[in-house]
Amino acid sequence: MTTIPLEYAIGVDIGGTNTKCGIVNRRGEVLQYEQLSTPEYETAEEFVNALCVRLNLMVEKVGGHDLIKGIGIGAPNGNYYTGTIEYAPNLRWEGVVPLAEMVSKKMNMPTALTNDANAAAVGEMQYGAAKGMRDFITITLGTGVGSGIVANGQLIYGHDGFAGELGHTIIRPGGRPHWSTDLNGSLEAYASATGVVLSAKEMLADHPDKPSMMRKYPEDELTSKHVFDCAMQGDEIALEVYRFTGQILGEALANFVMFSSPEAIILFGGLIKAGKLIFEPTIEHMERNLLPIFRNKVKVIKSDLHEADAAILGASALVWEMKQSHASL
Amino acid sequence: MTTIPLEYAIGVDIGGTNTKCGIVNRRGEVLQYEQLSTPEYETAEEFVNALCVRLNLMVEKVGGHDLIKGIGIGAPNGNYYTGTIEYAPNLRWEGVVPLAEMVSKKMNMPTALTNDANAAAVGEMQYGAAKGMRDFITITLGTGVGSGIVANGQLIYGHDGFAGELGHTIIRPGGRPHWSTDLNGSLEAYASATGVVLSAKEMLADHPDKPSMMRKYPEDELTSKHVFDCAMQGDEIALEVYRFTGQILGEALANFVMFSSPEAIILFGGLIKAGKLIFEPTIEHMERNLLPIFRNKVKVIKSDLHEADAAILGASALVWEMKQSHASL
Repeated sequence: MTTIPLEYAIGVDIGGTNTKCGIVNRRGEVLQYEQLSTPEYETAEEFVNALCVRLNLMVEKVGGHDLIKGIGIGAPNGNYYTGTIEYAPNLRWEGVVPLAEMVSKKMNMPTALTNDANAAAVGEMQYGAAKGMRDFITITLGTGVGSGIVANGQLIYGHDGFAGELGHTIIRPGGRPHWSTDLNGSLEAYASATGVVLSAKEMLADHPDKPSMMRKYPEDELTSKHVFDCAMQGDEIALEVYRFTGQILGEALANFVMFSSPEAIILFGGLIKAGKLIFEPTIEHMERNLLPIFRNKVKVIKSDLHEADAAILGASALVWEMKQSHASL
Repeated sequence: MTTIPLEYAIGVDIGGTNTKCGIVNRRGEVLQYEQLSTPEYETAEEFVNALCVRLNLMVEKVGGHDLIKGIGIGAPNGNYYTGTIEYAPNLRWEGVVPLAEMVSKKMNMPTALTNDANAAAVGEMQYGAAKGMRDFITITLGTGVGSGIVANGQLIYGHDGFAGELGHTIIRPGGRPHWSTDLNGSLEAYASATGVVLSAKEMLADHPDKPSMMRKYPEDELTSKHVFDCAMQGDEIALEVYRFTGQILGEALANFVMFSSPEAIILFGGLIKAGKLIFEPTIEHMERNLLPIFRNKVKVIKSDLHEADAAILGASALVWEMKQSHASL
């Protein structure tokens, strides 16, 4: 029987809709779980108060304050260096919110904060598919495209704390405009749930005479789940959507490999449920666009983490990385 | 008067044509200088013998072996982790050459080796424009495009030692084929001396009726220097070549910024002699392709290092970074 040291980390994932929090051991098991509605709280102070009530509840259940090493928070536009959330478009609190400091003071625990995609990368390194790796990239293909980059065993935060916005790199100059950034041809405009739906609509319009099961949905009700279901049933246009999405993603991954030469790229999120429909074209086009020196070296793999727990695990993993000096206390 | 510690580093830059070597102090002053012809030596052993004769000569002149901390070598396809040169296309020695070990044994000194572009980045950090920076990228715009990436104060080598091949990232999918890699639309195919000449030829052919001073050169004799001279004299097509080159480079830089969020991007090499002709469109198109969160933050600046000394300085800077464990002894 392996002895697990009696030390726990708190992970908090702040999303636009829900905030999830949990207490996690070093093995990545979520022992306690709570959640609250993020937009229900008008001010960050009210939110922090409500959050800490839940955190204290969980802390009591696992045996008290002394067993907790610290708190890790993943949040949109989270800045690791300052512990602040800065101008997050999907949160009600405006401007720069010193969230790590607020939580740390109230809980009297060291607290680290970063953006959700960076937290996911640390989670993979601590508990998941990247265990033992020193150089890898995680890419979350969900509603949007998030990413975290680890090099030399460290997350790359950049000089301002905002590194790793790979979803916004331009992979098709002059290409599809992004619905919120207005940049043309960014990875997120293609390789996200939203991008998949846009690709499907474009292809349906480009081939008006070609039959497709996707035509049974009114255009503004088509979702990426519909595209997935139709592809699974062999719908040719839906299959072509995945092939095209994989091509764009593969081209982007090739560029990322020539940047940081990772051992693996770990994919996560709704899009990878399509399995080989997305992995095959992705890997094919990545390899095709690599210098020979990089070919057949980089693993493109699925995340190991349970999707339901991943955000909490990622946030909690920040705690194990903490040095004393990182504490906001 | 500042006291300079009496400790020196040897820098060796191995190029396809010449190998340059020098002895450098901590301030980046080259105290001794020698060079030899690289392709004159059929085997790596003969080359190392000839190199070490020159190194010993220089070592004697500065006061002997005890004052030298170590040797840094910059070489094409140099692998930092193994100290080997691997399949360098522009060197006569085939396969994998354990050059760091060979030099280290012969000189009885710790020796580190990396590729020339990575060495340039370490040189900027030690002596040049990146002094004190922890996050920056250097890009050499010469015959080809080389690059070195520093994040968290460390050079990014990647899991295999080959990170930082930004010249080969695809910036125009399906674009201009590269003369040696066969990849389409890579940065190097545009933003190098070779790329500038290709752009000029394309534009001259696309506008056969438009007068240009460049037309006085036979097509296969046109060089990037000619394009530069004509642009300086106001030649419209030559000016457009620089604008276009800057646009491509700026688009590429935007992607690099969204990867590692550097404090600065430091440009080096022949192309930047064009000054604002290249810097203005580069910065304009970089800013235009960035997420708002990154805009007006990243400095795009010229290298501080003298071009003649830069390669030796970069290689020598590897020595100051050495930990005892890095030594090949």
